[in-house]
Formats: sequence, structure tokens, C-alpha cells
Amino acid sequence: MFFASDNWAGAADEIAASLQRHSEGFSPAYGASELDRQLEQRFNDLFEREVAVFFVGTGTAANSLALSAVNRPGGFVLCHREAHLIEDECGAPEFFTSGARLAPIDGPLGKIDPAALRRGLERFDPEFVHHGQPMAVSMTQATEVGTVYSNEEVRAIAEHTHAFGLPLHMDGARFANAMVRLGSTPAEMTWKSGVDVLSFGATKNGCWCAEALVFFDPARAKQLPFIRKRAAQLFSKTRFIAAQFHAYLDDDLWIRLARHANAMADRLADGLANSQHVSIAWPCQSNELFVTMPKAAAERLKDQGARFYPWPVPEEFESKLEPGQGLYRLVTSFATTTDHVDQFVALVG
Amino acid sequence: MFFASDNWAGAADEIAASLQRHSEGFSPAYGASELDRQLEQRFNDLFEREVAVFFVGTGTAANSLALSAVNRPGGFVLCHREAHLIEDECGAPEFFTSGARLAPIDGPLGKIDPAALRRGLERFDPEFVHHGQPMAVSMTQATEVGTVYSNEEVRAIAEHTHAFGLPLHMDGARFANAMVRLGSTPAEMTWKSGVDVLSFGATKNGCWCAEALVFFDPARAKQLPFIRKRAAQLFSKTRFIAAQFHAYLDDDLWIRLARHANAMADRLADGLANSQHVSIAWPCQSNELFVTMPKAAAERLKDQGARFYPWPVPEEFESKLEPGQGLYRLVTSFATTTDHVDQFVALVG
Amino acid sequence: MFFASDNWAGAADEIAASLQRHSEGFSPAYGASELDRQLEQRFNDLFEREVAVFFVGTGTAANSLALSAVNRPGGFVLCHREAHLIEDECGAPEFFTSGARLAPIDGPLGKIDPAALRRGLERFDPEFVHHGQPMAVSMTQATEVGTVYSNEEVRAIAEHTHAFGLPLHMDGARFANAMVRLGSTPAEMTWKSGVDVLSFGATKNGCWCAEALVFFDPARAKQLPFIRKRAAQLFSKTRFIAAQFHAYLDDDLWIRLARHANAMADRLADGLANSQHVSIAWPCQSNELFVTMPKAAAERLKDQGARFYPWPVPEEFESKLEPGQGLYRLVTSFATTTDHVDQFVALVG
Amino acid sequence: MFFASDNWAGAADEIAASLQRHSEGFSPAYGASELDRQLEQRFNDLFEREVAVFFVGTGTAANSLALSAVNRPGGFVLCHREAHLIEDECGAPEFFTSGARLAPIDGPLGKIDPAALRRGLERFDPEFVHHGQPMAVSMTQATEVGTVYSNEEVRAIAEHTHAFGLPLHMDGARFANAMVRLGSTPAEMTWKSGVDVLSFGATKNGCWCAEALVFFDPARAKQLPFIRKRAAQLFSKTRFIAAQFHAYLDDDLWIRLARHANAMADRLADGLANSQHVSIAWPCQSNELFVTMPKAAAERLKDQGARFYPWPVPEEFESKLEPGQGLYRLVTSFATTTDHVDQFVALVG
Repeated sequence: MFFASDNWAGAADEIAASLQRHSEGFSPAYGASELDRQLEQRFNDLFEREVAVFFVGTGTAANSLALSAVNRPGGFVLCHREAHLIEDECGAPEFFTSGARLAPIDGPLGKIDPAALRRGLERFDPEFVHHGQPMAVSMTQATEVGTVYSNEEVRAIAEHTHAFGLPLHMDGARFANAMVRLGSTPAEMTWKSGVDVLSFGATKNGCWCAEALVFFDPARAKQLPFIRKRAAQLFSKTRFIAAQFHAYLDDDLWIRLARHANAMADRLADGLANSQHVSIAWPCQSNELFVTMPKAAAERLKDQGARFYPWPVPEEFESKLEPGQGLYRLVTSFATTTDHVDQFVALVG
Repeated sequence: MFFASDNWAGAADEIAASLQRHSEGFSPAYGASELDRQLEQRFNDLFEREVAVFFVGTGTAANSLALSAVNRPGGFVLCHREAHLIEDECGAPEFFTSGARLAPIDGPLGKIDPAALRRGLERFDPEFVHHGQPMAVSMTQATEVGTVYSNEEVRAIAEHTHAFGLPLHMDGARFANAMVRLGSTPAEMTWKSGVDVLSFGATKNGCWCAEALVFFDPARAKQLPFIRKRAAQLFSKTRFIAAQFHAYLDDDLWIRLARHANAMADRLADGLANSQHVSIAWPCQSNELFVTMPKAAAERLKDQGARFYPWPVPEEFESKLEPGQGLYRLVTSFATTTDHVDQFVALVG
Repeated sequence: MFFASDNWAGAADEIAASLQRHSEGFSPAYGASELDRQLEQRFNDLFEREVAVFFVGTGTAANSLALSAVNRPGGFVLCHREAHLIEDECGAPEFFTSGARLAPIDGPLGKIDPAALRRGLERFDPEFVHHGQPMAVSMTQATEVGTVYSNEEVRAIAEHTHAFGLPLHMDGARFANAMVRLGSTPAEMTWKSGVDVLSFGATKNGCWCAEALVFFDPARAKQLPFIRKRAAQLFSKTRFIAAQFHAYLDDDLWIRLARHANAMADRLADGLANSQHVSIAWPCQSNELFVTMPKAAAERLKDQGARFYPWPVPEEFESKLEPGQGLYRLVTSFATTTDHVDQFVALVG
Repeated sequence: MFFASDNWAGAADEIAASLQRHSEGFSPAYGASELDRQLEQRFNDLFEREVAVFFVGTGTAANSLALSAVNRPGGFVLCHREAHLIEDECGAPEFFTSGARLAPIDGPLGKIDPAALRRGLERFDPEFVHHGQPMAVSMTQATEVGTVYSNEEVRAIAEHTHAFGLPLHMDGARFANAMVRLGSTPAEMTWKSGVDVLSFGATKNGCWCAEALVFFDPARAKQLPFIRKRAAQLFSKTRFIAAQFHAYLDDDLWIRLARHANAMADRLADGLANSQHVSIAWPCQSNELFVTMPKAAAERLKDQGARFYPWPVPEEFESKLEPGQGLYRLVTSFATTTDHVDQFVALVG
């Protein structure tokens, strides 16, 4: 009963098989192999336009290098106050930008409120050097609390962002989970809705270590080869990332994996819907379900072998939480089985 | 006939098999799994003392984070003028240290000359702030030109380094190749000879992507967990690095792989020893052989399918090179076959 | 009627005279002159203990270098949400620390609330690398909104700070104004109350450009000579800063200048106390008076030659502001005359 | 007999008087005063075109911010191996650029050899990310060893620089000394000869602390207001820099001061020309004279009150130095008197 994180899973069989298959033979290093080139081409097809794509090892790297590419002195990146960038990257975005600041924007259910974003952008006076200047907006799809922006919502954020001459970055660590929920296409979810730079994550959805940084305007990425190498993110045997991504995209594996993860989260939500001991905090839209329960109950579940983490209570949710209760995150993945889900539901009662 | 780089090989069978084996199931992320813990323990055994070890994705990351850990404002890192740090990392060491400088030290055959190092260290006057201050010495074992320091030579460098109160870093991207040549132990080659921090590379010797940063005095590594995370080098599914390293160390696989690579380089050297068209530039001590030949001959070999790179001519070697001749590097690896070697030797004639 | 900023004033006569006096002759550069040495000694006397003191050109430099000296990877500096560090330094603290983050702490009237500080410190789990780690607390004395911490209040903040093993920095851009209000000594206001590092500002209080960075534990400042030089803050003709500081400290000039500035603010407060058009927002404790008035009235005053700035409304004050009203800052300085004050009071009516 | 450095002098009388004159009254801070605006206009006139000019506190700041403005990831700045940037700024250029590297270029008498520069630029292959990329060339006028580039020599360097698409920076810490020697105009010496960015120093030539960073293409300076503020180089009372610069430019004061300094160096050279104890190392072209003498003689001169520094022996000069001899730098300034010079000459004998 492992619901702690989609990072607790290993790799999908097809990914492992691809790595095995490509471990033989010789080919150019540092991104120059045929396999690397073919993969770059596949990203053009995937997004229905010519993109500039760069493969890196971690989601934190993808996010940080995206911001490096659009960096400005005294720059602010506006993002949701619960964004991974802010909460979970130990200052990497700040470090790789030599000190850009992350400005937290409010909004319910992990989503940036467009009006709050507008206010956040308006507080900068281009003539007033002391405050610094905005340099980008970053949004997370799916969000950190399992919700999903509609494409209309993305467009609303993009409009404000572009009105201030800024690029819009999307942290897509769980892009696939959002996509299968929306029933949209990669192109619609991104550049057709105004996204300029995407961190396209594959690790959480069945790879070992495979993240892609995608620029929809290749001109913006001119310095990226140097930025990536300087960031120690140009792997020598890039084949091993390419081998993962090829298998990931072959035969829509990535979509099948994400569908399964989401289905497991839905099954969990269905199973817990009528529980007397656990309440669903807000609707599950991807592969993360948030529930409230008495802290003692959570401890008991852990003692019985369930693995999951407590979650910091969002400000707007505080009033809904009764004393003695906690908020908890349950994450499913490609590797979650119906057995695990049903066992957990039964245990909760 | 692939002699371009040991990075052109993929992964050894045992490494691929280990990745497959560990792709099932669930375990804690971000270095907290049982597999991660066991691996840390194995490094203590490997080096015969308690060490602090951190796994990262690239050799550039290992080197750069090693220097971050010992960083000082206005700091200089003294290293050989042909060091990988200087020639091939696109400013990563400077970037991760927010601007430390790499001071090139001379020495024949890719090795730091101890007297030159001493002069390099003596030029800093601790009271003279304008010049900056030395912060570390970094040496490469095996060197960039395939030579190997004896343990006595390491000790001579360590003595000068420590006399100035500085730590000694060893870039061990080809540590295994040096070790099997020396017939020494990991402990003897490092801390017993005065090395304080080691970049222990496994990628070039049969892994996909597995590098370890080893501190022989764990107290020096206190900030490393934060330094690594901030550098986007803490992988979520750390199991995949651990799985590689476990297989690498099991049953002395790493030693067998390095022995094979070195043997292939020796076979190449033997085969070319009497060639009329190619001369061995200096003795091969690891898995890299450097040869001179007419540039036209090199072109012809490439046309016939051989893959290898030209190499910048070291200053002290310039006078030995006849007009029209070039210097070339031939690298072998765990994946090199005797057939490839013999075919190449025959081709050279 | 210049109440825009104490930075709108020039230099006190004694400062200008000292610069003139010391412009003759020759003496060692880069902080090595007799005048520099004597000044360092005066700081020991001023603070009643041996300190390490470094002279720099701007308050932003003093603050940023203070934080550089105590920097940690993934570090957070906790400070009041309206701190100059956060609001007015264009990312300099983040830049000089290569990406430390400024964590805003709440508290009424510009002062850090100790309980809020405690909560802010407690949210870091030393084992949880993803969040980063706290590295310092910074407080401002006098605050950005003209209030002054009592020494007891400083001690309360210092206690929490030290309980987490962190240093306490004080931004003393208006240290003198706070001191004459408190009737305390430099030692009592700082290290005797738990302050570890002080930015001791003299520019706003009558100098042209003279800021001192004071470490009460000289051991903490060992790298500062290099940090300062690397930050381009080691002036060649350091005499010109020393000449200002000597005059500043001679015959208690600095105290007389601050007393005058504060007296002018008090006179302004007294004069406006019974105004029907202007309300004093909160008690004036240094040389800054904050008032509310109709925005139209403010415009009128400006048309009549008064110079002052609007001020962002603190969250806790929002409800007190009637529609159409604005919050304004009136700053006095050593150069403010009673005529200016009286003229302004008369104009307000 | 002070010949240690032009930084040992204080401020010219006219500079001190201007500071006194402008210390009264109120005016906007942070570069917004009328005096600041007028000064910006004067720089347009001085350089006979519209420039973007930024005032900072130190030469190191001017140089470092110039490079920040043209920064690129993995960037190299090519400059003479004895450049101030390399030898005397404690890593500031590297720090402010987050790790750019300074690549030393050879050339006799402190001047970049154009052919060596060309070779230095050619070694970068734009496709080979590992080496990094060139980002700028920086030259020093007058050089660190007192020589002066002719405008033709500047053009030769500019041609190579521009052929690689790079900007040319001129470190003009002693710009005035070079100018009066060349008998050229500011425009001819800079943009008309291909210089793109200039550090225009005034401190060494009679100011306390006044350096200007001049961009001949204002478009290149768009981010400079933020770069300067983030670097802690935007002074609050900018009037004090402006007051210095206005006096500096009034009635050609700066030219008169530089002429005097150079004349004193010439007088020194004339006086020492026939000395039996001292030899002139190379012709004096600005306000720095380099001489060789027995180390014992230098000690004796110091005992008798002369102040000057030894200088590291340039490689190409090593063979000219007899055993027991040292190389010494004698610097004159606006404050040097004929008495001092004659006294020193007499003492040398």
C-alpha cells in the first residue's frame, strides 16, 4: 500500500527493456547519437511544431534551467505559493539564476488566481529599480495538490503574462496525468494556450530519470546548450535518457501509464467516498488524492503498512479542518495495483 | 573500431540486468531507500574507513560539487593545465563556486609537477587580498592523457597542498583504470596518500550514469546534502544510481571491466609498436593510447570506419611533432573487443 | 519642504570639511592608511569590545556582505516582510549569496513578531533537504516605518535566533536615529542584546557615502576581506570613507545630527497632531513620520512644493484607511530646518 | 617621495571644493537629481554621441558590471595576462558574471598581441560546448605597465574582436593619462576605434571615488540599471559622484591633472636616464615608470623615505634582469611635486 509518492515506484517494464536493448554497441556521446537526434525529431511531432528540446536528469534541473534561459537581473518569477519551485527545490531556481526571487501568488486549490497574478505583476514599476523586475510566470500542471488547469485557465494566465512582456513557463512534472484528465493534446495544453517553455517530466510516470526542457520558440533557447553543460546536466551517455524517452513515447506508453495512475486515484476516491473515517479534501483530478482524517487514524494506517505523507494545510483550507485532524496526500502511479487500492480502502473502513 | 571515447560505449550487461531487477516494487525516494543506505555502507568498506558519499549524475557535477564544498571567496583551484575541469566542463566549476578560478599548473605527461605546484601556491600572499586566495588543489587519476600517478607522486602533491592548509581533490573519472594499473587499493590511492575528496567515476567504466562524490573526512561534507539538492543533483529515484553501483561493485565487476579496457589499450599499443605509419606518443598507462601519424593517414582510417579524435598537442610535445603529423587519442573501454583492436591494427599497417 | 527621504540631503558641514582636510597628501590605499587603522580602533571603543569592522559604499552592500559571511546552501534569511532587504535592494542580498532566499515574517508596525519568527524557524526540518535551511535572521533598527525596537524586543528576537543556532543581523541604516530615541549605547543596542552582525549606516545621517559592517565576533569575519574585495567594495582611496567617519564620530557629531533629525520629526508630529486634514498613522519613534490624508490633499501639497512619497499600506493597517485616503511618509534629516517643518504644517492646515 | 600608486593621493582641490559646494540643500536621490542628469548629458558631449553612462564606486565595479552586461554561459573574456581584471580584482569579474573565465593573452609590454588574440579566439568551436564560448575582449588603456596603445593598435584588436561577433571592453582606469599622451580625443580613442564599452576612471586622476561605465550602444545597456542596483553600486546620494565628475570635466581639469602626472613621470624618466644605479625598463608612456635596480638599492631608498612597489617580472623581460636586480614601479599622479621627483632622482644618484 504505497501512496507516498510516484517517485517510490521504479521503472515501467518497457522502459527497463529499452535500456537493456540500447546498452549494447557504440554511439556518439553528449547528445550526438542517432538515437538522440531521432528523439529531438519526435518532440517536434509530439508538439506539432518545431521546438528546441534539451534532456536533463531531474525536474529541478528542468525548471531551474528554464528560468536561467529567461533570467534578468533583479528578476522575479511569479508562481503559486505552493509551487514545487518554492517549496521543494532547496533554492535551486535561485541558485541557477544567481539570485532571482520566487514571488508567491495566491489562488485556491493550488492554482494561480489570474486576478492575483495581475496584481502581482502590476506592483512592479519599470522605472523603479529598487523593487527588481518580473522575468517570468511559472505554473504547475497538474498542480502540487492534484488539480488540473483547464486550457482556458492556462490561457487566462498566459494573457496576463504576455501583457507584461513575460514568458510563461509550465512545470509539467505530472504533465501526462493532467493531459489524460483533460483529454487534450500536448500542443493544445501548451503553446496553443500560450505556454512558452515546458518542463516535460517523465520520471514520475514510469521512467528512471528522464526530463525534457522544451522551448516552443527555439530562438529563446540559443544559449541552452551552454547553460545545460555549465549546469552539469549534459550527460555523457545521453543514449540512456533517449532510450527511456523512446520507449515512453512508443505506442502511447506514456498515456497508458498515466491513465492507469489516474484510474487508481479515482478508484481510491470512489472507495473512500463513503468512508466514515476519511473525507476527501477536494476533487481528485490527476494521480493525487488529498484526504482528511484524524491524526490517530493516520498513525494506525501507517502501523498497518500503508505509506503516505501528511501535507501542509493550505491557508484557505484551514477553517475546514477539525481539531485533531490532519491533511494527507495519497499518490498513485503506473505501478499502483488495484489490490493495493482495495486493501487500503478496506483498511480505512 | 570505436576508439573515440569510453563514453561511446553503453552499459555493461550486469549493470543493465541490475536496473531491470530493481525496476519493480516501491521504495523511498531521494536517497532514503534501503538500497541507497546499503550502498553508502559499501563505500565505507571499499575505502576502509567511514566516508561521506553522495551520488550524482555526471562527472562534472561530482567535480563541481567537490569544489563547492571547499569554496572560498576569491578562491583559486590549482590543477593541471590540461585538466578536464579546465578544458571540458564549460565553466561548471566556476559556476557552482560562484566564480572560483582554475589556475593551470604545468607538468609533463598530464601530471602536475610538484615544484610548479609549490610555486603556484607560493605566489599567494595571505595579506594581499587583490590576488585572491588558493582554496584547493585538484589532480586527475588517471590523467587526461592516459598516464597514472604513482601513490608516491600523489603523496608529493598532497604534501604541498596540505602545507598550505588546503584540501586535495582527485578527479577519478577513470579511477578504476588507474587502480588496476597500479595494483593498489582504493584506500591506498586516496586518503592514505593524502587525498581529501574524490570524484569516483563509474560511468566511463560500464555504467550508464553513476558518479560518487566521496569525502574522507565526513565533517567536511556537512553542507553537501543541501549543496547537492540545490545543484539539481538529488535524483528522485536514487535507486537507479544505487542499482548500477551495487552491480558495479558486486564480484569485482568494476575491476574486471577496467582490466579489460586496459588490456585492450595494451593490445593496441603492442599491435602498433612496430607500425611504420603510426608512433606511440608516450607510454599507455590506462585505457587511453596517444599516437602520432600523418593527418592524411588519420583521414584515411576514418574513411575506413575507425572512430577516434585528434588531441591538442601539449606544449612540451610540440617539438616532437613533424610537419603534417597529428596527435590522436585512442580510447578503449569495457566494450572494446579484440576484433576491433586487431582490425584497427591491421588497417594501420 | 523636503520630506521625501533622508537621502535627499547632502553632507553635514563637518563631514565636508573633513574631506577637504584629508584631500591633501599621500597615504597607503586600500584600507592600509593610518587613518583607516585609527578608525578601526575607534569602532572597538564605540562598541566597548574588539570588533571586526569593514567599510563599504552602500547600505545594500553592507547588508549583502553581512549575509554572504553567514551564507549556507539553500539558505533562508528571515526578516520582516517590509524590510529594506526584501523591498528595496533589487535582489542584491540574493545575488551576493548566490541565491539565498528572504523569508518574510509578519509583525505590526514594521517589527518582527517573535512568535511569528519562532513559527518561521520551526518550519525547517534539518533532515528535509527540499525546503532548504535557515541561515540568519535580519532585523531593521529603526524599522522601515519609523518605529524602534526596545532592547528587550531585540533580545527576544535574538533568543529565538540563537536557539536555532543562527546569527542575528541588524540593518542599522538609521541606527543613530534609533539610538538617540532609546537613550541607549551602541553596545547595549547590539551585542549586549544578542546582535551578531551590524550594518552601521552613516550616509542617511549626514555623510556622503559611509557604511560600516561590524562583526561582534571577529572570527566570523575571517573571509570578509576577500568577500569585500570580490564584491567590488574595497575602495582604493579608503581615506575618503575614513575621513567621513572620523568627523562623524568626533565630538558626538552623529548623535547631534540624529537628535536634530528626530526633533524635526517630533516637531512635525506635534504640528500635525491637531490637523483636520492629516492624521498621524502611528507614533513617530525616529526620523520618519507616517500620516494619512486624502490623496487629493497630498497632490495639492506637492503642487505647493512639498516633497514626500506615498507608502504601501501595511496589511494590518488596510482596514483603518478610508476610501480616497493615502498613506504617506515624511522623513526628516540633519538638514531639515524648523522653517521647513513649520511651513509644511502651516500648508497642511 | 610617494611613487607607490596614484591611489595614494587624495583629491584635487577642485574636486574637494565641488563636494563642499554641493553638500548643501536637497535633491532627489539614486541618480535622479538635476546634477546627475546634467552629467549624463556631458558624457554625450564628451564622446560626441549618445551614450549610456552609469556611475559606480570602484574600477573593479565598472569592469565587472561591463562584463555582466555582455555575459554568456560558459563565457570567456580574453584579456592581457597582466590585466588588472586578472591580477588585482580578487575574482570580482568572475563573481559578478557567475563564473565567466578570464583567458590570458600574451603580448609584449602589457599590450595584447593581435595575432595571439586571434589564436585565442579561434580555439573556440561554436559547436563544441565543452570548451565554453568567448564573450568579450577586454583591453587596458593605459596598460598595467604604463604603455599606451595607439588608436591603430586599438583598431586592430577591435577588428579581431568584432570578427568573432564580440564586444570590445576598454578598462580606462588611466584613460586620461593615455589620452594626453596620445593627443587624441575620447571619441577617437574609443568608439571610433571600435571600443564598445568603456570603464572611464577618474579616481586615480584626482577624484575620491568616481568611475563611469560607458556604453557606446545604449541598447546594450538596457539591463544596466538593474545590474548596477543588484550589485550594490547605486549610491543613494549620487550627487557626491556627480559633483566630483562635474568638477573633473570643468575647464579641462581632468586633462590638466593627467598632463601634470605624465609630466612628472617624464621628469622622473629624464632624471634617471643617466643614473648608474637604476635602468629604465621600457619607455614611459603614461604616469608609470618601470625601472630595474639592485634589490639592496631599493631597500636603501625605502629606508630613506621613498615609497614604491616591486613589480612581477614579465616573462619576456626575465632574461634582461641580472641576478640580484629587481623590477620596480614608480607611479606619479596629479599630486606629485617636482620637489618629490627631484629629491628622488638625487637620492638615486
